[in-house]
Amino acid sequence: MNKKIFIKGHTCNVSRTAEIIGDSWTSLILRDLFLEGPRKFQDFTNSLIGISPNLLSNRIKKLIEYDIIQSRQYSDHPPRNEYFLTDRGKDLGPIIAGMRDWGRKHTKS
Amino acid sequence: MNKKIFIKGHTCNVSRTAEIIGDSWTSLILRDLFLEGPRKFQDFTNSLIGISPNLLSNRIKKLIEYDIIQSRQYSDHPPRNEYFLTDRGKDLGPIIAGMRDWGRKHTKS
Repeated sequence: MNKKIFIKGHTCNVSRTAEIIGDSWTSLILRDLFLEGPRKFQDFTNSLIGISPNLLSNRIKKLIEYDIIQSRQYSDHPPRNEYFLTDRGKDLGPIIAGMRDWGRKHTKS
Repeated sequence: MNKKIFIKGHTCNVSRTAEIIGDSWTSLILRDLFLEGPRKFQDFTNSLIGISPNLLSNRIKKLIEYDIIQSRQYSDHPPRNEYFLTDRGKDLGPIIAGMRDWGRKHTKS
């Protein structure tokens, strides 16, 4: 386990977590990883309708920096990477499940 | 209980919830209401360091529209209001608790 994530200017645990996972693209990336297991970059672009490759790269990079996800090469020829949840990322499971349950009960599209 | 909250363009329960509670000021307002019970406007401005009255009003208005919090008058002379969680708002408890636990374990300020 990496050292704790430093979030400047937030003295509250709840707001630090919101700062890290609160934007809706990030919560969708996490949802896909929880529901589907390891994902390729292309899987995310197929699933997250409307996200630009740049924005997706940026969100993935942040999650790797925070040690919430990691990348690994699953094929040599051609070289291909996939992303998966670290132990720290898996600890977000109850939050994502809670968001799913609340959304199901109280919202509609 | 009000009818379900309509969030345009989000087909996923997780992302609809993120859209509603994902910004960090909102999560702090909810945290205060869960930890402290009913709160006055002034209580929030004391607790949410750096928030402008306009932004706070805006966030509160949104939460009332969504039927996550309500306002009630607790004094006639002078007239004074306080805000409290509805049943729908209380259903967010597991998410806020999960964010607190994850933040405590994995982040620092």
